[in-house]
Amino acid sequence: MGAHFTLPGKVYLVGAGPGSAKLLTLQAMEVLRAADLVLHDDLVCEDVLAAIPAHISVHSVGKRCGMKKNSQEEINQRMIAAARAGQTVVRLKGGDPLIFGRTQEEIAALREANVDFQIIPGVTAATAAAASAQIPLTERNGASKLIFVSNHCCAGKNDLQITRAITEDATLVFYMPGKEFEALQRQLFDAGLSEDLPCLLVSQAARSEQKLIRTTLGNLSLLPSLPAPNLLLIGSTVAEARAEEAVTYSASGAEQKLFAEITLDLPEIRETISDKLTF
Amino acid sequence: MGAHFTLPGKVYLVGAGPGSAKLLTLQAMEVLRAADLVLHDDLVCEDVLAAIPAHISVHSVGKRCGMKKNSQEEINQRMIAAARAGQTVVRLKGGDPLIFGRTQEEIAALREANVDFQIIPGVTAATAAAASAQIPLTERNGASKLIFVSNHCCAGKNDLQITRAITEDATLVFYMPGKEFEALQRQLFDAGLSEDLPCLLVSQAARSEQKLIRTTLGNLSLLPSLPAPNLLLIGSTVAEARAEEAVTYSASGAEQKLFAEITLDLPEIRETISDKLTF
Repeated sequence: MGAHFTLPGKVYLVGAGPGSAKLLTLQAMEVLRAADLVLHDDLVCEDVLAAIPAHISVHSVGKRCGMKKNSQEEINQRMIAAARAGQTVVRLKGGDPLIFGRTQEEIAALREANVDFQIIPGVTAATAAAASAQIPLTERNGASKLIFVSNHCCAGKNDLQITRAITEDATLVFYMPGKEFEALQRQLFDAGLSEDLPCLLVSQAARSEQKLIRTTLGNLSLLPSLPAPNLLLIGSTVAEARAEEAVTYSASGAEQKLFAEITLDLPEIRETISDKLTF
Repeated sequence: MGAHFTLPGKVYLVGAGPGSAKLLTLQAMEVLRAADLVLHDDLVCEDVLAAIPAHISVHSVGKRCGMKKNSQEEINQRMIAAARAGQTVVRLKGGDPLIFGRTQEEIAALREANVDFQIIPGVTAATAAAASAQIPLTERNGASKLIFVSNHCCAGKNDLQITRAITEDATLVFYMPGKEFEALQRQLFDAGLSEDLPCLLVSQAARSEQKLIRTTLGNLSLLPSLPAPNLLLIGSTVAEARAEEAVTYSASGAEQKLFAEITLDLPEIRETISDKLTF
């Protein structure tokens, strides 16, 4: 719309992938090496930050569940000011910046300020989690849909609009499922989903601290609280998931038992040892 | 379950990303450089193949719409035989191997054969397409769900199970939407979706030949047939999509016009030129 000035700096909105620096793209690595300033979220792990050359100015602008270090407006202004000063700015976000990455406000601000920007996609956590569990997210004759849902701890949304019909041939992935598994279980039961549906909780996908726990929707409320970020996968493909623990809750008369089937030595597991715990 | 032999070779099921070699992960590049044998799909682009060192044995085992070069069984046996002979095998797939990558049969065959394998996730086409269009796939106060659907040209499935309720706050992405946009439009109208819903057709996402065309669900049937692979994004976030063309069909009385709003000079567009065509 009319003449404009070509601005000297540029902002890259970059996906860091879900964990290991090995899941950075070549392009992400290229712009990180060329950056003057890197502004990153809390979800970007240490492994990735360690891959950034030491001379580059790196700042955390994380915010999580309302505990903000910097407001969105402050982050926007910082990106814009640095680009206008001629700097190459990398705004680094965990996973892919366009999937539950709150990138909308930053895109709008950069457009409004007429600052040149480019988005570099990244590996999203769901596929890294499924890769660790060695399961597909879709199947040719099974799950023909893949649904990513955010159940963010701050949102307080109750209406998922998930129905039994849509989930019958789908894999559901909850990003940031929170810790209220009982409430989530109730919502999914209300939607008509079966208690036999396999579930997989993945904590810190692709990181060295990664943990995978397999269960069923009927036992979802029993899942322990694991370190964030978490991901919850639900659907038939999950039945084959490789996991460190499988939590199965069975009530037989007055006695209630937690069976923990522990598979050892990830990622090189070959054998499964079954253990039985009473609680 | 009991003793087993540690096999010498290993198979890596690797996501090549959607187009440019720059979207390969560092880990994908690492295993490609260490490979003895690379078996790749048709969807893996030339740019990626050119990044594989020349001494490595690279074979296309592509299959598309029933035109098979190699059967799935042949591919499985080839991977297993090479791994058993001590080779490092990379099974390279476009995008992410776990999202519409037909990896299920290969995982099952490798497990059955007790061959050591690892899955390396990749950037899936949807996020690369959205990155090119400079739009988020989810929004904090808008699209809280992201739904990937395959509408494969060979499938002939009619029941998408997509409802208006689930799409009201979702972004829909059709992988391999085929060329029958009129039939797809009818299905989505039948599901109660609005004709005003923004749509974006992305051909060859992240490749140099990439093309983006924006329209609405009401005009979906008018979309041209573009070179595969294609991706169709539908939802409110698409309204802001950067595109090379916006196809808008309006019927005013007996006169029907195609308005093509052409935005120039991707990826550095700043100005929009409107053009009007009659057909």
